[in-house]
Amino acid sequence: MKSTASEIARKLNGSVEGNSNVILTNLSKIDDASEGSLSFLSNVKYIPFLKSTNASAVLVPNDLKINETLNATIIRVKNPYNDFTKLLTEISNEKKIFASGIHPKAVIGDNVTIGRNVYLGPNVIIDDNTIIENGVHLSSNCSIGENVIIKESTYVFSNVSILSKTEIGKNCIINCGAVLGSDGFGFSKNKSGENNKIPHLGNVIVSDNVEIGANTTIDRATLGSTKIGYAVKLDNLVQIAHNVEIGEYTMIAAQTGIAGSTKIGSRCEIGGQVGIGGHLILGDDIKIQGQTGVTRNIKSGSVIQGTPSLEFNSYYRSFALFKKLPELYKRIIKLEKL
Amino acid sequence: MKSTASEIARKLNGSVEGNSNVILTNLSKIDDASEGSLSFLSNVKYIPFLKSTNASAVLVPNDLKINETLNATIIRVKNPYNDFTKLLTEISNEKKIFASGIHPKAVIGDNVTIGRNVYLGPNVIIDDNTIIENGVHLSSNCSIGENVIIKESTYVFSNVSILSKTEIGKNCIINCGAVLGSDGFGFSKNKSGENNKIPHLGNVIVSDNVEIGANTTIDRATLGSTKIGYAVKLDNLVQIAHNVEIGEYTMIAAQTGIAGSTKIGSRCEIGGQVGIGGHLILGDDIKIQGQTGVTRNIKSGSVIQGTPSLEFNSYYRSFALFKKLPELYKRIIKLEKL
Amino acid sequence: MKSTASEIARKLNGSVEGNSNVILTNLSKIDDASEGSLSFLSNVKYIPFLKSTNASAVLVPNDLKINETLNATIIRVKNPYNDFTKLLTEISNEKKIFASGIHPKAVIGDNVTIGRNVYLGPNVIIDDNTIIENGVHLSSNCSIGENVIIKESTYVFSNVSILSKTEIGKNCIINCGAVLGSDGFGFSKNKSGENNKIPHLGNVIVSDNVEIGANTTIDRATLGSTKIGYAVKLDNLVQIAHNVEIGEYTMIAAQTGIAGSTKIGSRCEIGGQVGIGGHLILGDDIKIQGQTGVTRNIKSGSVIQGTPSLEFNSYYRSFALFKKLPELYKRIIKLEKL
Repeated sequence: MKSTASEIARKLNGSVEGNSNVILTNLSKIDDASEGSLSFLSNVKYIPFLKSTNASAVLVPNDLKINETLNATIIRVKNPYNDFTKLLTEISNEKKIFASGIHPKAVIGDNVTIGRNVYLGPNVIIDDNTIIENGVHLSSNCSIGENVIIKESTYVFSNVSILSKTEIGKNCIINCGAVLGSDGFGFSKNKSGENNKIPHLGNVIVSDNVEIGANTTIDRATLGSTKIGYAVKLDNLVQIAHNVEIGEYTMIAAQTGIAGSTKIGSRCEIGGQVGIGGHLILGDDIKIQGQTGVTRNIKSGSVIQGTPSLEFNSYYRSFALFKKLPELYKRIIKLEKL
Repeated sequence: MKSTASEIARKLNGSVEGNSNVILTNLSKIDDASEGSLSFLSNVKYIPFLKSTNASAVLVPNDLKINETLNATIIRVKNPYNDFTKLLTEISNEKKIFASGIHPKAVIGDNVTIGRNVYLGPNVIIDDNTIIENGVHLSSNCSIGENVIIKESTYVFSNVSILSKTEIGKNCIINCGAVLGSDGFGFSKNKSGENNKIPHLGNVIVSDNVEIGANTTIDRATLGSTKIGYAVKLDNLVQIAHNVEIGEYTMIAAQTGIAGSTKIGSRCEIGGQVGIGGHLILGDDIKIQGQTGVTRNIKSGSVIQGTPSLEFNSYYRSFALFKKLPELYKRIIKLEKL
Repeated sequence: MKSTASEIARKLNGSVEGNSNVILTNLSKIDDASEGSLSFLSNVKYIPFLKSTNASAVLVPNDLKINETLNATIIRVKNPYNDFTKLLTEISNEKKIFASGIHPKAVIGDNVTIGRNVYLGPNVIIDDNTIIENGVHLSSNCSIGENVIIKESTYVFSNVSILSKTEIGKNCIINCGAVLGSDGFGFSKNKSGENNKIPHLGNVIVSDNVEIGANTTIDRATLGSTKIGYAVKLDNLVQIAHNVEIGEYTMIAAQTGIAGSTKIGSRCEIGGQVGIGGHLILGDDIKIQGQTGVTRNIKSGSVIQGTPSLEFNSYYRSFALFKKLPELYKRIIKLEKL
């Protein structure tokens, strides 16, 4: 990258304040920038860095008020975060040269179909009857079961296990150590109290444009399919149990777990370490705060927190009084003494 | 599978209502069935599907009241869930043909003993002095340390790490990415404030019929053994610390963590995302709700919830009033104004 | 090991009570000891075992009062736990013989630098331009990306993924299945509601003497570095998001997650299953109880608990009254009836 502030402003439909000829050679965070850096300001927490940053230029929102003289050139845009991401993506694409070819230490089973421009890293194992479409990248030490299909341009990082019958859509990213298609946690107690394993004959279906985090686990269905919808994003160490279904665009942060057969709608935003019970139905556009425990069905558009979960504002009103309980207790004692 | 409803009823000691000659060709969930499907009804949440299902027949409990005319044939049995599991297991066994043999890309150390009908997948690594008994299946990319023993008919999925001196019983299932025998999290602070690593010289002992979930981690003991009892079932992403002992038949749901040296009794049912502190003793037949935090010893037969954990009914009574705190607060203010 | 109680006492600057000539041949836990065992007593929970233990000798604190006659010889020392660790480490070092050499099934890319006394296990993959310094041990099935540096004497267990540009210091231990350098969970919503992936061009930097638990995940920075400070210890299944920074000596127990861009100070002790929100600043010497949810900046020296987190004593006072809510409710009703 090598551009002037005015060239960047033109590209982003922005306006410049300060030295429009300053040369920008790299993208940096505002608190970690140096001469030549272009940074951005999006989160108000970082406003103090506007004055102290060493960046040569900073993208800021059109309506940001600035009352002091700054060293950095200011480029005003509508959405600094999105525009910065756009520039990052451009640079990232410049640098990206994907390997292709099949490493001699890959192990390929019988009746496997492999498309064009596929990369199979060393020690990738592909079992019988599996289909790897064009442009798929499988990094080293991945184990792919039989009767799997991985569609165009999906990128799988190292040490991933994808078990038999799993279907993965186009343009997905599967991060290191993820497991797709493990048996669900299903047992039925027999007369003598033993837990008999319930066979898991179903599979996992992952739609297009999904990202799955490192060491995340997705169990196959008992019957039918565990379904991850279009453009769903799962963070690291997430647990998705058998027969769960997740609607399109839903995002789930790290270490959240969803128990068996629960259905989650579209465009939900689920925080980290949330637990969602089994056999529940959650609607669309739900927001769930971190560490919430969901034990009942939730209506579309809800915002919830707590274990068991309450509507967000209710939780906060109650929690504010939880903090005041020692004071309330004294007031009750005082009333009793009257 | 191809049977009539009456043939299925005879096999399960059940009784038929409706067309007893309908042909059943597959097993399906009640909300995902089609012509030829045999389904089951066990959880009351699914009663509405009895009317709308496309299944040709449904297993229902003997005492279920049905007030409407159904398209599907009804087969009444004592325990539909167990009977359905029995049929699933039959079909699953029909389909199961285990590979056997040693892949040329497996790597076997010195003085390793390998039984009959063993399968070692590609890139399985087995270190010195390890014993693999008859019928064991080790999938691709597993790393097995030295002085390990894996007993008869245990099935290990891909990318599992089993470290030195671990003992695994018969008929166990170890899912992808699990780690058995990692060092425990034990340090002792020296005078200068540094945390010195405590060497972990113990091991992990897993009894027969245990299932261990994907990406679950079990640390070796400092001294002695971390012990997983007979028929224990651990879900995905569970953490078992050093020197923990878990009694027979206990089941632990996903993402639960148990800190060092805690002993858990038999037949406990522990929900997901539960945290259990170190050096505790939990009795038998305990039920722990999801996300509970256990910080003290727990008596046999207890049902607990909350952080720190309370007896279940106490928790619910208190939580019901937590929800009402804003109202209670108003009532206190009103009393003060009198 | 073969020493008398008096020889051990001399080595540890301790004093003997009882038979100072008893022969000690192994180290054991006090509740798991046999003839010839040397045990230790540190946690008061284990005092009852002092009478019943089969150990031949026990290390106890100088000031421990003992009112009964014991079978075991007593060795009084300043800090039994540290001294026992010292003896364990001696024995552990006696037994430790590290392999060295490069297994013929390791796969090494172009322009890789490999130091002296390095061990590369079977199926270790090392990508181009990576540096492996003297004495590094990489166990089987590890995948190391390009432009990585792993410094002197670091030990990496099996099935670990270390992605491009990661820097790992000296004397670190990386347990099985850990993932370092996975992409962060960062997306920016575009006009049509799609979540565009934010490229992650940064890296992970791990300082010297760090231990990272099994199946723990550490994401690379968007820009700049995710930083793990000197002598930090991370337990199993921990999640460290992009651009997090953790100060020296901080210890984090299992299944804790830290969201993006949060900075944590030095010498903190963070319990298990803690969730810490993004873009926060936590000071030094903070203690966080298990399952706490941190949603705001925290001052140095704080002790906190609860979700959202409160100062520890406040939490306990409020929680004590939470338990009493049903009683308080009755007292309010009684007041209302007056």
